Parts: sequence; C-alpha cells; structure tokens
Amino acid sequence: MRQSDQQLLTHLDREGAARMVDVSAKAATRRTAIAAGEVQMRPETLAAIAAGDAPKGDVLGTARLAGIMAAKQTANLIPLCHLLPLQMIDVRLDADPGLPGYQIRATVTTTAETGVEMEALTAVSIAALTLYDMVKALEKSVQIGRIRLLEKSGGKSGDYKSSDRNASS
Amino acid sequence: MRQSDQQLLTHLDREGAARMVDVSAKAATRRTAIAAGEVQMRPETLAAIAAGDAPKGDVLGTARLAGIMAAKQTANLIPLCHLLPLQMIDVRLDADPGLPGYQIRATVTTTAETGVEMEALTAVSIAALTLYDMVKALEKSVQIGRIRLLEKSGGKSGDYKSSDRNASS
Amino acid sequence: MRQSDQQLLTHLDREGAARMVDVSAKAATRRTAIAAGEVQMRPETLAAIAAGDAPKGDVLGTARLAGIMAAKQTANLIPLCHLLPLQMIDVRLDADPGLPGYQIRATVTTTAETGVEMEALTAVSIAALTLYDMVKALEKSVQIGRIRLLEKSGGKSGDYKSSDRNASS
Amino acid sequence: MRQSDQQLLTHLDREGAARMVDVSAKAATRRTAIAAGEVQMRPETLAAIAAGDAPKGDVLGTARLAGIMAAKQTANLIPLCHLLPLQMIDVRLDADPGLPGYQIRATVTTTAETGVEMEALTAVSIAALTLYDMVKALEKSVQIGRIRLLEKSGGKSGDYKSSDRNASS
Amino acid sequence: MRQSDQQLLTHLDREGAARMVDVSAKAATRRTAIAAGEVQMRPETLAAIAAGDAPKGDVLGTARLAGIMAAKQTANLIPLCHLLPLQMIDVRLDADPGLPGYQIRATVTTTAETGVEMEALTAVSIAALTLYDMVKALEKSVQIGRIRLLEKSGGKSGDYKSSDRNASS
Amino acid sequence: MRQSDQQLLTHLDREGAARMVDVSAKAATRRTAIAAGEVQMRPETLAAIAAGDAPKGDVLGTARLAGIMAAKQTANLIPLCHLLPLQMIDVRLDADPGLPGYQIRATVTTTAETGVEMEALTAVSIAALTLYDMVKALEKSVQIGRIRLLEKSGGKSGDYKSSDRNASS
Repeated sequence: MRQSDQQLLTHLDREGAARMVDVSAKAATRRTAIAAGEVQMRPETLAAIAAGDAPKGDVLGTARLAGIMAAKQTANLIPLCHLLPLQMIDVRLDADPGLPGYQIRATVTTTAETGVEMEALTAVSIAALTLYDMVKALEKSVQIGRIRLLEKSGGKSGDYKSSDRNASS
Repeated sequence: MRQSDQQLLTHLDREGAARMVDVSAKAATRRTAIAAGEVQMRPETLAAIAAGDAPKGDVLGTARLAGIMAAKQTANLIPLCHLLPLQMIDVRLDADPGLPGYQIRATVTTTAETGVEMEALTAVSIAALTLYDMVKALEKSVQIGRIRLLEKSGGKSGDYKSSDRNASS
Repeated sequence: MRQSDQQLLTHLDREGAARMVDVSAKAATRRTAIAAGEVQMRPETLAAIAAGDAPKGDVLGTARLAGIMAAKQTANLIPLCHLLPLQMIDVRLDADPGLPGYQIRATVTTTAETGVEMEALTAVSIAALTLYDMVKALEKSVQIGRIRLLEKSGGKSGDYKSSDRNASS
Repeated sequence: MRQSDQQLLTHLDREGAARMVDVSAKAATRRTAIAAGEVQMRPETLAAIAAGDAPKGDVLGTARLAGIMAAKQTANLIPLCHLLPLQMIDVRLDADPGLPGYQIRATVTTTAETGVEMEALTAVSIAALTLYDMVKALEKSVQIGRIRLLEKSGGKSGDYKSSDRNASS
Repeated sequence: MRQSDQQLLTHLDREGAARMVDVSAKAATRRTAIAAGEVQMRPETLAAIAAGDAPKGDVLGTARLAGIMAAKQTANLIPLCHLLPLQMIDVRLDADPGLPGYQIRATVTTTAETGVEMEALTAVSIAALTLYDMVKALEKSVQIGRIRLLEKSGGKSGDYKSSDRNASS
Repeated sequence: MRQSDQQLLTHLDREGAARMVDVSAKAATRRTAIAAGEVQMRPETLAAIAAGDAPKGDVLGTARLAGIMAAKQTANLIPLCHLLPLQMIDVRLDADPGLPGYQIRATVTTTAETGVEMEALTAVSIAALTLYDMVKALEKSVQIGRIRLLEKSGGKSGDYKSSDRNASS
C-alpha cells in the first residue's frame, strides 16, 4: 500500500490492521453533520401510510424516534467510531409523492474532537429501516436509497457540502 | 383509516398506536431472508480500498463483522421487531468496478414465529455504513443505495423473490 | 436464614449469594403478564400534553415506544432475569383527569419457561419515566406511582390477579 | 398548540414532532440530582428479605448495583435523553418498617450541559424493579411508588427542591 | 488452507472470511458448560477484600453479578457467537490463600443448538475484571489467569472434561 | 473495616456498600493505559490459525475488532466504571511460537477525570475470548492467562509501570 493511501485509509495502521484513530491531539470544536436518504415504495403504500398515520402519527413518529435512538448507538454499531456526546439530534421524514415515498434527513451536533457524519448517516439508515419494517406487510419491494452526507461543518478538515442539488432545498 | 389498511399496517392497533405484533399463535418454522445493497464511490476510492485491503483484509473484514453483529442488534434498533434466535448470519462484500463500489449481500436464518427480513436488511445497512466510515477520509461523496429484500422463505405469508434482475446472480 | 425463606427468595443460593434461577427443568408454556402504573401531574401539565400532543401524538407515542423497547431490554437491566422471546408487547397510556395524569398499562406475552412480569413492569416504568422526561420542563413535581402487577397467567405457580379494584376496568 | 406550550414541551418541535433538545449553546456546569421512590410490601416479605440478606447482602446489593448500572443506560432507555458523563452514582435502599418496605434514594452528579434528573430517577426505578424481581416468588402484590425528584442543582433553570417533607430527612 | 483446517476453523468460510456458523440443522438439546479462572494478588490485598467485604459483601457480590450479567451479553461481545436462551447462570468466587487471590467458577445451562462455553468463559472473565476494578486502588499488579473450560456436556461433539486436576475439586 | 482499608477499597462506601466513585473534583487530563494477556494453545492449533488466517486475516482481525468494540462497552460491563470518551483504542495480537499461542496487547487513551486501565484490560480479555471462540472447534484446552496492566500514565495517582520484564519489549 502506498504511503499516501495509508494516510487516507485512517482506520488502518501501517500493517493494514483496523484501529480506532487517535483523536487526542485534536481540539474539541462544535461540529454538525446533515445526512439524507430516501425510502421508495408504491403509490398505494404511500397512501396507506398517510391514511394510517393520521390519527396518532405513529408510523413516522416511530421511524423518527428509532433514528434518534440509533444515532446514540453509533459507536456500538460502527466498530471504529468514537463515542461522542451528541448535543442535538433531529430526524425528519417528509412524504415525496414524486418518488413516491419518503425523504429522510438527520442533523446531528456535537462539541468533540471528531465529526458526527456517521451518527447522522446511522440515524437516516435506521429511520429508513424502521419505516420499511412498518410497511413490509403491505409491500416487500420497498427500497432504501441515496443515503449520503449532505453537509458537514466544524473540524480541521474543513466544511463539506454535497454537490447534490436537492441537498439543502 | 379503512379496515383493510389497518390490517396491513400490522404495527398499528385499531387506534393507530404503534404496537409489537402478537406472534404467539404462529408456528415456529425455519425462515431465511436475503437482502442486498450497494456502496457507490469514485474509482480511485475503490482502488485505494483494494490496495489497502491486501495485507490484512481489515476494511472488508470490519464491514462484514459489523454487519453480522448488527443483525444480532436488530430488535434493539427497530422498535417493533421481535428478538429472534438467529441461527446463521452471512455477510458478503464484493467489489463491483462497474458501479464503481461494493455490492453487499446478507443472508440470515432462524427458526421462529416471524421472519428475518429486518435482520438481513440491518446487516446490509450497517456493513455499508462501516465501509463508508472506513473510507470517508478519502471521499465524502460515497453513497449507499438499493437496500432491498432479495428473497424470503418460510412462514405463512409465503415465499418472496424480488423481481430485481440482479437478485440471485 | 430458615429453609422456607431460602426456598422463597429463589434468587439467593444456600449461602445467600445472588444467582440466576435454573429454569431448565420447567416447560415452555404460553405466559402473559399485565402491569400498570400511573404518572401524577398538575392539571395544567396534563392540559399542555393534551394540547401539544394533538398534531402528531409524539408525547404519548414516544412514551409508548420507550416502554416497548425497554421490555426487550429487561434481562439487561434486571440482573437475575432470563432473556425471554417476547411474542407481543403492548403499552397504553390513558389520560385520567381525576388523577390528574396518565394511567399506563403494559401487556407482554411469551412462550417460555418463566414468566414476563418483570418485562411488563419494566415497560410501564420506562414509559412513565419517558413521560416524565417530556414534561419535566413544565413541572418538576410529576410523580410516578402504583407500579404493580395486575395479572399473570401461565406457568406452574398458577395465575394471579391483583385485588386492586381498578385492575381490569 | 399555543406558543407558550410549545416552548415548555421542549421535546417537541414546532410541528409537534419529537426531537432531542439542542444543548450546544449551554455551558457545561456541575449538576446534581437526587431522586427517591419506595417499594411497599407485606411485613412478612420485609422480614424475609432482612433474614435472607444477612449472610451476604445480595438482595439489597443486587438492587443497588442494578440501579447504578441502569443510570449509565438512561440515554439508551429514555429516547430523547442526552448521553452524559456521569461522575458519581450512589443508590441507597433503607428498610422502612412503617411502610412496610424500602425507601430508595439515588444521587447522580455530572459536569454537562444538561441535568441528570432522568439518570437519578432511572436508578431508583430499576433498583425498585430489581427488588421486586428478587421477592416476587414470596409476594406478587409488591408495589412501587412515589418515584419523584427530590432535589436538583446546577444549570440555568435554577435549583429545585421538592416540597415533599421527607425529601431530605 | 487445507480442507481439514477449513472445516475445523468453523468460523471461516471457504475463502477465509468470518461467518456465523449455521446451526439450523442441529437439534436443540440441553447443554452445560463450566469455566474457571483465577485472580492473583498480594496477601495484603486479599486480606483487605476479606475485611472490606465483611459488612455487606459488595466486593464479591459485585463481581458475581457482573459475571452473571456479562454472560447474557456474550453474543454482543463475541462477534460470531449465537444469542442463546440461558436457563441458569451461576458464578462463584472463592478465596484461595495459597494463590493468593480468588478462584472463580461459572456454570451456564441452555437448551439450544449450540453450546455455552463462551458464556461461561465470559462470565468468569468479567467477574475477574470487576474484582480487579474494585481493588486496583490497592494494588495495580493484580493478574488474571488460567481462564479455561473445565467441562462441557450436551451436543453432538460430545462431552469434554479438562484434564486440569483442580477442575472439579 | 479499618479506616485505611476503607479508603483504599474506593468502590465501597463507609458501610461497605458498592458505589461509583465521585470523580467530579478531579481534573480531566490525558491518560493512557496499556494492558496485555496471552492465549495459550497447542502448536497444531497455532499452525491452523496461521494457515487459515492467510487469505483474509479474519481470525486475528475478528479478535482485534472485538477487543476494540468491547473497550467501548467497559462501563456497561464493569458495574462501577465511569463511561469515558475513549480517544484511541489499539489492539494487537502477535503469534508467539514459544508460548505457543498469541500475545495480546491493548492501548487506550482518554482525556478524562479517571483512568482507562479497565478499558485496556477489557479489550485484551474480549480479544482473547474471541480468539478462543474461533478455535474452540479445533481445541478445547486453549487457556487465557496473564491478563495484567503493563503501564498507565496520567492522573494524580502517578504513573505505573509493571515490573513484568516482558512489559514493554
């Protein structure tokens, strides 16, 4: 492996073994990450959720909570992630009739030595899986896609903003 | 909500409140589920993983293990899932230069009153997120997509096979 | 310690040390437990929840989900509990203007060698704590009380029904 | 929902959806919370615990440890709680022949952006449930009650002291 | 890798990748495993534990409970372990002045398709680490050793009994 | 119990009850701990791992990851441990033909009010157990031993270095 690759695959040590990156020399700064994803389904399935969700909101509410709780479990799920003190987690699910399905977006904030991209991506993924779980009796062909980082700010590596044109709409 | 919808959104009770479905009247039978997903990245990122992975295999090995371990956490992540005794979990990541990126596939088996679709989908999702985590210093625009159920067998609702043409290739 | 006490404090061995009771000689039978509890608050707090809960239902929905998820964590929280395959978990929160506050009730079902009283009681307790958490900015004097087993059926020790007159109303 | 309610139900956003409150603008200060609760039982049950507990102390010791460990799990149990670095957890169980039963008190300390009321209340609740678990073979009518916050100090919202007259005795 | 090795390293598939062994074709039978280990310390440390443990028993009681609770976490700690329904967990710590230190022994029982060796070994290991934790302010040179399987019964691979002469004394 | 013992058994309060030590008056400083242990096996078992590990590295890679992930679970496993923000975790397994078997070493870093000895020791223990799990079909007499603290730096109690002569080789 070339030296340059080695430095970039920061989770591998010089011999290629997995390790948890040392962040002790980095400053704790405020960091935010926004991730997104989508859950695609048949129009009838989308309509059933909209109808079923009316009285109590538990389909989307359950997915939202599952996403929030999963963000707090990120370091237990992603082997080389650091456990970070999350200061805010927000998960939104918006119906998108054009998909058809739901657009999911998660925003996570911390003040720490490393960023919260994985926490935001985990929140989106588990919210999507929970939505899948709640409608799978209706449709088995639901598909989860386009899970990606939209934005990230804070930290030495600089801010990032996805070129994805729907990122911040 | 119409009666028919209510029966299909099985995770909601008559009033629309979330609940864990009662499976006590169902027979415990052998059930298998296969799920898949893909992680799309730039060709250079794929090349760096291939190079970095050579000596010890820890990039793909870490993602694979994370997927296996996450399958066992499914009932803690997806609020209304039942905890099931998983008898086998297999997670594969295959490089796909045409994507470019990795195809991920997870197979899970149980003998239980309900199926293991969510376990297979969770394994794929967390394996994909772990792969993302390991290459995010190289590329932030990695995208996870096409997370879907390929096949499911066992149980009263019958077998399912995705019409996805790459499903069982 | 007298012999009779020793047999009744089944979680202690002959020397008084904690142990997990051996259930391997017991038959796996269907078992259900119903537990209840209440969360007492000022009338204004109850009114604010009712108002705030209208659009999306997330106050009560969050408490309900927390209770369901906690039931699945019982064996990790109560040191000497066995991990059981829960087949159904149902948690209800009903406003009680006379309290004033909420009545919480949890029903849990399994087919196992031992009962699910602790799972039902844990679901009630965590649902109550979650409700507390969501209103604590409004009122710090909210009080959780009367957490108790209402009914239990299945198993060799026979059925139990609380003499509590509100138990099954 | 009126604006004032919305601000007070801080766990709901403007649309009534659950969220984890953003604490990133708050200062990390030392905070303490003391919570209490009680476990009521028949005099014979209390006597059996006292007798059984003599040689090794495992009944009360098990409940105490379960409370301490549960405090560390609070953010995994209460969906919208922040994970906080707990600096001290103390759980006490004192026999109260007048109840008859046990008075439980938990004290938790942190230096963080938000308080530890939920951690103290969770410690009390799980210690109480563990006590219930250990005596349920003796008596099924054991009841857990009066779980409440006694005191809280630190943080911008000011100190709180329960008017409960037994609070600090 | 030779075929024979491959079959014996059952956690690796044909290509050497980690997997969770498929146990779905195996019968669920009653299985027991007994593991042991020891914690070696200076005589003064052993004496301090004995003295400190007298009034409440919390040093050894804490280690014992930690071992019991850890056994239930085995499948979350050991990546390729199956989650099994543990029917009994017993952990003992006995002072051994000749060591000097403590002998730890854990017995675990299940009725399942695979054995509970790892659960018994995990219980011993975490009980030993907890004992270490509780005395580390007294002595940092405490050493944990001889963690091994003493006996195993049930299952197709037959019973096993360690040749260790102190195994069953 | 003498006063001096009581002060040294810091996890016990004045009455001998277990408690989590209050670290709120201590300064958060950078702390590192290095722990080690060994896994002893027959020469043939060591040879089979070496052979089986060649193509993908998953035997040692799995043990390494399990150790890293377990370090993050320390506060959930060891009842009186504080949850600390781990900044780096490194786990190494080196074949030792003279043992024969593997030498395991874990290094953990934090910036916190208390040290990370238990995290390093937990990483070593779980890595060792995972190695055991992966070879137990080959040999049941594998033994884990010499789990000990090699070095610790940072904190008021001063640095520690084991007199163990192989400690830092």
